[in-house]
Order: sequence, then structure tokens, then C-alpha cells
Amino acid sequence: MKIAVLTGGGDCPGLNAVIRGVVRKGVQEYGFECVGLRDGWLGALRDKVTPLGVADVRGILTRGGTVLGSSRTNPFSHEDGVGRIRETLDAHGVDALVVIGGEDTLGAATELSHQGINLVGVPKTIDNDVAGTDYTFGFDTAVTIATEAVDRLHTTAESHMRTMVVEVMGRHSGWIALHAGVAGGANVILVPERPFDIDQVCGWVRDRFRIESAPVVVVAEGAVPLEGQMVLKDRSHDEYGHVRLSGIGEWLTREIEKRTGTEARTTVLGHVQRGGTPSAFDRWLATRFGLHAADAVAEGDFGTMVALRGTEITRVPLDSTRGRTKVVDPSLYEEFAVFYG
Amino acid sequence: MKIAVLTGGGDCPGLNAVIRGVVRKGVQEYGFECVGLRDGWLGALRDKVTPLGVADVRGILTRGGTVLGSSRTNPFSHEDGVGRIRETLDAHGVDALVVIGGEDTLGAATELSHQGINLVGVPKTIDNDVAGTDYTFGFDTAVTIATEAVDRLHTTAESHMRTMVVEVMGRHSGWIALHAGVAGGANVILVPERPFDIDQVCGWVRDRFRIESAPVVVVAEGAVPLEGQMVLKDRSHDEYGHVRLSGIGEWLTREIEKRTGTEARTTVLGHVQRGGTPSAFDRWLATRFGLHAADAVAEGDFGTMVALRGTEITRVPLDSTRGRTKVVDPSLYEEFAVFYG
Amino acid sequence: MKIAVLTGGGDCPGLNAVIRGVVRKGVQEYGFECVGLRDGWLGALRDKVTPLGVADVRGILTRGGTVLGSSRTNPFSHEDGVGRIRETLDAHGVDALVVIGGEDTLGAATELSHQGINLVGVPKTIDNDVAGTDYTFGFDTAVTIATEAVDRLHTTAESHMRTMVVEVMGRHSGWIALHAGVAGGANVILVPERPFDIDQVCGWVRDRFRIESAPVVVVAEGAVPLEGQMVLKDRSHDEYGHVRLSGIGEWLTREIEKRTGTEARTTVLGHVQRGGTPSAFDRWLATRFGLHAADAVAEGDFGTMVALRGTEITRVPLDSTRGRTKVVDPSLYEEFAVFYG
Amino acid sequence: MKIAVLTGGGDCPGLNAVIRGVVRKGVQEYGFECVGLRDGWLGALRDKVTPLGVADVRGILTRGGTVLGSSRTNPFSHEDGVGRIRETLDAHGVDALVVIGGEDTLGAATELSHQGINLVGVPKTIDNDVAGTDYTFGFDTAVTIATEAVDRLHTTAESHMRTMVVEVMGRHSGWIALHAGVAGGANVILVPERPFDIDQVCGWVRDRFRIESAPVVVVAEGAVPLEGQMVLKDRSHDEYGHVRLSGIGEWLTREIEKRTGTEARTTVLGHVQRGGTPSAFDRWLATRFGLHAADAVAEGDFGTMVALRGTEITRVPLDSTRGRTKVVDPSLYEEFAVFYG
Repeated sequence: MKIAVLTGGGDCPGLNAVIRGVVRKGVQEYGFECVGLRDGWLGALRDKVTPLGVADVRGILTRGGTVLGSSRTNPFSHEDGVGRIRETLDAHGVDALVVIGGEDTLGAATELSHQGINLVGVPKTIDNDVAGTDYTFGFDTAVTIATEAVDRLHTTAESHMRTMVVEVMGRHSGWIALHAGVAGGANVILVPERPFDIDQVCGWVRDRFRIESAPVVVVAEGAVPLEGQMVLKDRSHDEYGHVRLSGIGEWLTREIEKRTGTEARTTVLGHVQRGGTPSAFDRWLATRFGLHAADAVAEGDFGTMVALRGTEITRVPLDSTRGRTKVVDPSLYEEFAVFYG
Repeated sequence: MKIAVLTGGGDCPGLNAVIRGVVRKGVQEYGFECVGLRDGWLGALRDKVTPLGVADVRGILTRGGTVLGSSRTNPFSHEDGVGRIRETLDAHGVDALVVIGGEDTLGAATELSHQGINLVGVPKTIDNDVAGTDYTFGFDTAVTIATEAVDRLHTTAESHMRTMVVEVMGRHSGWIALHAGVAGGANVILVPERPFDIDQVCGWVRDRFRIESAPVVVVAEGAVPLEGQMVLKDRSHDEYGHVRLSGIGEWLTREIEKRTGTEARTTVLGHVQRGGTPSAFDRWLATRFGLHAADAVAEGDFGTMVALRGTEITRVPLDSTRGRTKVVDPSLYEEFAVFYG
Repeated sequence: MKIAVLTGGGDCPGLNAVIRGVVRKGVQEYGFECVGLRDGWLGALRDKVTPLGVADVRGILTRGGTVLGSSRTNPFSHEDGVGRIRETLDAHGVDALVVIGGEDTLGAATELSHQGINLVGVPKTIDNDVAGTDYTFGFDTAVTIATEAVDRLHTTAESHMRTMVVEVMGRHSGWIALHAGVAGGANVILVPERPFDIDQVCGWVRDRFRIESAPVVVVAEGAVPLEGQMVLKDRSHDEYGHVRLSGIGEWLTREIEKRTGTEARTTVLGHVQRGGTPSAFDRWLATRFGLHAADAVAEGDFGTMVALRGTEITRVPLDSTRGRTKVVDPSLYEEFAVFYG
Repeated sequence: MKIAVLTGGGDCPGLNAVIRGVVRKGVQEYGFECVGLRDGWLGALRDKVTPLGVADVRGILTRGGTVLGSSRTNPFSHEDGVGRIRETLDAHGVDALVVIGGEDTLGAATELSHQGINLVGVPKTIDNDVAGTDYTFGFDTAVTIATEAVDRLHTTAESHMRTMVVEVMGRHSGWIALHAGVAGGANVILVPERPFDIDQVCGWVRDRFRIESAPVVVVAEGAVPLEGQMVLKDRSHDEYGHVRLSGIGEWLTREIEKRTGTEARTTVLGHVQRGGTPSAFDRWLATRFGLHAADAVAEGDFGTMVALRGTEITRVPLDSTRGRTKVVDPSLYEEFAVFYG
């Protein structure tokens, strides 16, 4: 049996660990031949195929990014994308695909699976918002980096008695913000799932100064204030039709300064959250995902995605995860209410 | 309502995060008055009680260890231990206890609960071997530190073409060894749950040298070789009656050198695994445990232990966890068989 | 003898280590009484004085920021600033000051010293641009954090075959950029001391892509392109009259994309570079600065600044450092020319 | 011109950065052809020569260990070692050697230089005890790792009110112990340069407990107690004829427990101090050493060693460093006396 592996979407710590897991188990246990498709779906469309043996995955466990390259290419926005993918797979005698990616990549995988391509999905996103799995790999690394940043910003906040606003990743979900905010002891945590009241935020900020301490605010990039609290020129709409601010962190900082008359500063963490060596947790999870994806292929259990449930790796139908962003439940957000302010 | 908090057994990153969670939720949400008992059960026996308000838990989230101190004191090995604990609680008007500890501390808690003391348990052990919960806090930090060590030892191994043996914590379970070994890309992982064959280990070592690479061996302190592979003078019995080697890491290193004729070195990680600031994951988990323990007290749901199941915090009867060490399942150990050697 | 300590300017890892060093040596060895002035020169102007004993500095060695608070207040821009400072010192019977700060704070200290106030300076700036000392504390921590970021961004760059631009601190000097760029293996390093040619930068970017690799660009916030390469609307002048771009990182990213037709992304590291626990090197240096500042006070060697020369702590006249920003020498920048591109 | 590079002695973070620096500057600036000798002097004796081009050193900057391998082989303990080295160099047309190593490796280099072999030395040792240079690369990484360990052990010490003894590297010099001890806020620091009085150590331990705190003791592996404080069976002599204890850390722990009646625990850091990715400082220093070694070769300045003096890289005659271990000066040790106890 011959299998191909591809990684799609934004890079994420742990991608290489998955690839290594698939190849080691596939080759050593099941006798598969493995190849890689370069740059996500692009490699499948343009016949960019590379050998992927046990020697090729040696030493990649600890490396961030993906040795296969990635892209945001969607096969369905290319003419006869499906046909071209089929051609590539046929030309190389590939029997099955292992597709490692987030919502968009797995969405395309689901569609291709419906059209008869044998594949198994592996959920990847530092945002942790893929439905059907307790956690995605890359998330723990992102939270770890964001938490270290929050730790560092506390001392700056205290020394200057100013508010430090830190904007973390999370366009549609607030998992990173909530986890890093709780782990870092932030005083305000703002998530996309729950439009925030800027007056309440400023109240929390004032509360903090009142006890001779200085606030740290963690805000997900996709968080938005209540309707009416932004003036029009501040906002726009993103490709999903959601209200988007260019730089919610900056906006918050300006509003806090204006409304409370105290100093505030912004830090936008950006890409450092998604690069570099994966955390121990992410290497463990990604490795297991890779091993189990090889199992699923060996069993012919296609159209599925490997997933974490508790401490077990399970499989769920790709269909069941489609179009369902996993968001932060209001009750979970409220669990930490005693820390706000 | 007045509650007392105590931390027992070995120290563990996240203890302070639990204490803070209990106090913040207890005081701010439920209006509890909180006190701390110093040095585990010792404080309950000797009336060492300390106030524990919101101000006292400020800034402790990120600190390792426990601000309440700890000890391995067992109330049942003191004359009239239960009576003396009751006296202390009565003298201070304490209505309920939050007991944060591992197997021994929670075992005593279970017994005290049977004798009518209102208490809620919080599972703590870096070893991750408390039954009833997916993970304990402190474990992720220990795995993170052990994984960093394995990362570092790989380059030493390769530069000198020698085997590096690293002994990690885990007397009765191999969770740290397995997680850090998998996350660190170790070539041999040895756990207490599965007596190892020194010949097989040496075979794996030779395999590794054959591909011009150098092996890293992760061994839990409680791992033992197959019957008959140790000479008598190497072994003894610990307080639980298990076979114990003083320094399984050293033993392994000597055997590998003797049997394969290649160089090997030992590193014993020791206490660095249990000290210092908790990882982001452990701060999240410990904080939630603390918040939920306060909830359990508020609801009068005594004789229970908070526990992690998937992404949810639940409660389990303390009785149900008693005397049940959670060990590494053979099938989980075998999951990583392709990496051994 | 009674001495007062103050910390001025932006916060910096190691400030607390200096304070601790001054107090421990001052009290234990010389029998000084110590007090702290709150919030830099502000505390001296407004009589905000706080006791500072050995117990007060316990445990602060590892903490970022400053337990004394800081501000950018300049005593000479307040009416009768010198007189008010004198009053505060007299009111508390303070015989001498230890002033920990950067160019501005030490500039004021120099002037006050001329006016007869007994003081010793300690150079502080994460930018490393105070003349007279090999290094300032805080710098190594900033470089360490920036280097970790560069490490992380490499894998993102490679996975997406895009340029990653990282903007680091350094308004007037490129020390952080040069050190972190060299340590992180950056392909382009841009410093304020040497206006860059955007065409050359784009050439280096193209060279990198040509060998199937992806460039990482480290740019100091104060770096500027050659005259004429910016359109007017992009630039402004800062308070020192230097040309300033709001966001040189963003500008570079846009220009690289426009001129090379390849993807690029910006990360602005910001405040995380100056917060948090100091590196081992900075704790060592800051502690020694503190100890030696106490010695200088004990010897009555006022109007001086402690400084690092090789491995020795020496003293230099405050006058000799005034108005002299220590910049990156062109020959040092050229030393790394083989790595550019 | 053709040059060969070799790395000898124990591995050390930064070796690869030196190799990369030599090759990049050598090839790109001077047009040298470069080769590597495998496994230190062994490769020179046994003709193990490997090509070393710009592509071979790509990506190695951040990796610990040495891509050339290392050994402790001494050419002068092999029959006609010099002749065989000459043969190897002649066979490959090698004009000059860059020798990266510690005391032993550079000692052999000095001798070979006297016998007419063209070579330039680069000082390497995590112990920092090579004479003629302010610092060696690898030292800062070792200190960083040891300091993190001390940080972690403080919280364990406090939680259990016990002494934590941490044994760090340093057989003949106490640089790591002193730097990590000062940076980590240790209460006792013991170095080989100054035999310690176990009674004084126990006094310091008691002082610490008296203020309700718990001591951390940092001890270099080569530290020894005053004459007469060890019983004979505890000690032996090492290959240099120095008194050696097998495990001074363990010995100290036992003595502290016995003499003070309080609990103590040992941690032996071991090999984790010398593996893994180099610190930013070490990457900077090692890279500069590599670049300057290439310069020295280009200028034909043989028989020299590159060295750090302040912020400058200089050269010193190899002869001048021979047999001179750089030790901790008593006055430097005394500088920190206020922290002991």
C-alpha cells in the first residue's frame, strides 16, 4: 500500500511530529510506502511529490513548522481540482491520503472523501477550535508562549502602574486567550464568543489600580465590543462577514487610556505563537495522532478524523466536524469570573 | 462558613494555584472565611492555623511549591490523630476542609471523611497516578522539564556516540517516563508497569548505533528488569514491598557498557522535576480544581474529589479512588513500539 | 549612614537584583540604613519614601520590574526640582543616593551631582547603549527573548516560504538587533547606526529564496532606509529630531512584498523584551553592580557610575558618560557580513 | 587554501556555531576549501575526513553538540601520533587546522604547533577555566541551566523546610557554581578553589532556617572540605592527583543532616548542563570565535588562540595559555559574602 501525507493551512508546532508518526508506524508496522505532497493541496494539484521514508523523518519531532511545506490553496477553487488531485494520486499509485490541517483543509478533505478519495484527517490548529476533538496539537505550545508573555508583562505593568494589553491569536474562538489569561493571572480576558462591554473593562481596570496593582488584559484578536461602542471608522468586515477591527488590542489600549485617564500599552504577540519547537504535550498528542492515522489507513477506515477524547485517541466521521467551529462555552468563561477585575 | 485548606505530601507545581482558586472563589463568590493549615496534616494535629484571605493569595499563581508548607505526616499514625484534628477544626470554627494531596494524603482524607469530617479532596501528584482523574496537576510541568532534559541529552549522545540514560520520577507508575520519552524521541522507555529485558534493551542500543545514531534511554526510577537479571546485591525492597534498585539508571548504564562494549552515561533528574513555576497547562488545571473544590464545599458535596474528565471538571467519591494507583496500560506502552530501538 | 535608592526610566530585568545588592551589602557590611524613593525622581520630588531593609529585598532577585516603581519624570523639568529633592533627602536624613537608570535618569543624576548631591549611578537599559560600560543589565535578557522569537519565526518562514520581519527594541542603537540577529541566524539585520538600502535588503531576500530557504529579517525599531527611499507620508521626526517611521517593521514588510512579489509578515516584539525574570547573566551583572554601588557609597566615591570592563566592575565619572550614546561600530556590523543574505 | 576543522573533548553548546563561523567566513570571504576531521584528534590520526561546505553548516547554529563528533583522544599517547596527523593533512592537502577544544585538546594543539603544524585554537569548555579569555562559549548555557535548576529547587526547599544541595559541573574551577549560585540566590556556594569548612556550612544552614527560610546549597563537583573533615573512606584521588569525593553533593547532604538534625536532599545536575541549544550569548561568542579563527588562518597567524577580552575578540599565543587553569579569584568569591548564610 502506498500513502501520501500533506499538511495544509497555517503552520503549527507538531506538524512534523504527526508526519513522523504516520511514516514510522506506516512503514515499520504496516509496510506502507510513504510519499509527501508538497505545500498542502498545491502539491496534489501540481504533482509535487516527494519521497518520505523513515530516514526522512529522523530528527524532525522537535522541529516546528512542516518539512512538507504548506499553503492555503483550496482544491475546489481550482478548475477541475478534484480531477487533478486524482491524476496525481494515480500517477504515483497512491492508495490513500493522510490530510493534516484545520477547518479549511479538512473541509476540502471531507468533500474529496465524498467523491471517493480514500483519506484520513488529522485536526490541526493552534486555535483549538476544530469540533470533535478535546484538543488540537499546537494549541498547548501557543498557550505556553502566550502565558510566558503575560508573565513578563505583569512586571512591566506593576513597575509603571499602567495597563498592559496583550493581543493573542484567535479569530473565531477565544481558547488561547482564555487559557493564557487564566494561566497568566490576567485581570481581563476578552474572547470573540462574548462581545465585551468597554465600560465594564474600564471598571475592571480601575478596580485593579485601586488595590495598588496594575492590570493585564488578554484579548483574542477576534474579540469585539458591544454593538455601538465602536465608531464606524474603527471597524470593517472580514471574509466571513464578522465584524473585524484592525487591531483590537490597539483599540482597547486607546479606549482604556481615554476613558480611565491612565496609561496603557499594547503588545501583539503574532507569529511567535505558532512557530518553534512544540511543547511536550503537543509532541505527545501529535505523535499519537500520527500513529493512529496510520492505523486508520491500515484498517481502511476512511472519511474519518483522529481525535482526542479524554486520554484516548478515537476517530470521528469527517462529516460530523464540518462547518462546526468549537467555541468557548459561556459557562466556561464565567467559571473564571472571580478573577476578572 | 469557614473552610480550611491544607497541602500534603511532596511539593508539586500548581499547589499554590489550587489554594488561590479555592480562596478567590470561596471568599468572593460564596463569602467563606478561609484559613490555611500549615505543613499538611501536621498543622491540623498541632493547631498551626494561618489566615488565608484574598490578599494572601495574590501573586502566588506562578510560584512553585506551597505557601502553606507541606509534610508527609499521617494523622492515623499519631495517637488520637482524628481527635486532635477535630479539636483544631472546632477551636477555629472550621466547617469544612479542602485537602490537596496525593495517594497518602487523600487516603487519610477518605478515612477522616468516613469519620464525619466534611472535606473535599484535590488530587495532586507529579506522577499522575491518582485514579479517577485523567491528569493531576504538576505532571505536565514534570514532563516538560524531563522532555527538555531529553532534548539536551540527544546532542551529547550524538557528539560522543554514547548512550545517555536519564532516570525520571515514577516509583509505581511510568507516566513521566512514557510522556517524556515519547515527547523527547527516546529510543528506549522503561516503566515500572512492565519489567524490562536487559537483553532487549541492549539490542535496541545496538540497533541505534548501527544507523550511526546514539541512543537515549528514559527510565522511571521504579522500573525493574526481569526476574533473574539482577544479582542479589543490586536489589532491595522498598516500604511497599516492591523490588527496588538503588539507582536503576546507574545499574542500566553499567549493564549497557558491560554487555555492548560501548560508552554510556547516567543523568538522574531528581527534584528539579517537582519544583518551580507550573506550566500553563498545570496552572489552568490547578486553578480549575481550586474553583471547583470551592463549589463542592458550597454545595456540601463532601467526601468527594474533584477530577478531570476530558475537558470537564467532575467529582468522584474519594472512596472510589482509594488504594487504586493509576498505572500505564500495556496497550498504551505498546502504542509507541515503533520508536523503541 | 543613610542611603536612598531609586529606579528611573523604563523597567528592565535586573533592577530588583541591583536594589537587593545595594541593600544587602549596605546594611550587612557597612551598617547603612536604606530607604527607597518611589517611582524614580518622582519619589524624590514628592517625598514618597519607603523603608528598604534586608527583609524587603528577600525573594526579589528573580523578579522582573522594580519593587520601587519607576517613572520618566525629569527633576529639571519641575520647578525647583533640585530644591525639592534636597528637601526630601534632608527630611529623611539621607546622606547619599544610588540612582539606577538609563541615559535620561543618569543625565539628571550627573547634574544633581554637580549641584552637590552625593550619589552613585548604576547604568540600566535593555538597549545596551550607555557609554562607559561593556554591557548594561537587562540587555542579555532582551537578546535572549528576541533570539527565541527569531528561532520560532524561522520555522514559520520555511513552512510558508515567506519572509518574516521581526522588529526589536533599539531606538538609537542596534545592539539588540545585532546580537539577536546573529544568535538567531537572521539573514538580514538592520540597525539605526547604518541607514539601509531597501534594494539591497530585497536582494538578500531573493538570494535566500533562491536556495530554497526563507529569510528572517531582524530590524531595530530605530532603523531607517537611505534618504529618498521612503515617501514623505511614511516618516516623521521623533523628539530627538531623528527620522522616525511609525512601524519600520510594517514598512519593510510592505516594501519586500511589493518589490519582490513574495509574501512577508511582521512581528513586533514590543514589551515582552523588557519584562519578566532576568537571565542568569543579568542577575549576575545586576547583583555585582548593586554590591559595588554600595562600596562606592561607603568609600564616598560620589559622582561616579559603576561599570563593567571585561570581567571587572569598575567606576567611571558620571560626566564621562553624559550625552554619549554607545552605538554599534560599523566594523562590528561588517564582521557578520557573510551571514547577510 | 584548504583548512580542516576539528572539535575535541567533551561536547559543549556552541561548537556547531564555531564550525559554521569558520566555514562561512573561510569559504565566502577567503575562498578556502574546508573539511572536517571526525571525532577530534581521532579523525586526524585515522584519516576520517569529511567535506564541510556552506550547505553542510546550514541550520547547525542552534544545535547543541558537534556535527563533527568528538573524542578525548590525545595524539601524543598514540605511537607516532604527530607523523600520522601530518600524513592525514598531507594526503588531503590541508594547509591549516582550526582546533576547537579545552585544556587537553589545546595542549596537544600547542605541541603540534611547535612541531610545525599550522593551526589556530578556539577555547571551549563549559567550565570557563581556559586562561587567556574572559569567557569560553558553552559556559553561559551551563550557567543558565544550572540557574533554572536553582530557581526550581528554592520552592521545594521552602515547601518542605529542608536544605536542597545541587551539585554542578566544575572539577577544577568553580565558575559555574559561583555564577549559578549568585544568579539563583543560593545561600551557600562551594568551589574547588577554596576548601570549605563543613561547620561553617552547617552554621549557614542553621541561620537560614532561623529566619523561617530554607537553604539552597550550590556545590561544584570538585569542591572539597577542609583537611580532616572527611574520613578516609569517603575520598580518593583523581587522575590529576587531586582529592576527589565520589559525589561531594551526597556527602554534603549526609553531613548537613547528621550535624544539623534537619532534612536535606541532593540533586546532581550532570550532563544536562552541557547539551542542547546554546544560549544567545554563547551563539554570539561562538560565532565570533569562528569568524575570527578564519581571519587568523587567512593572515597566517598560527600558533594562536582566539580569545574574548571585554567586547573584543583578540588573539593570544597558545603557549601563553598552556597549563594555566583559570580559577575563581578569592576576592571574587568574597564579593558575594553577604549572601552566604
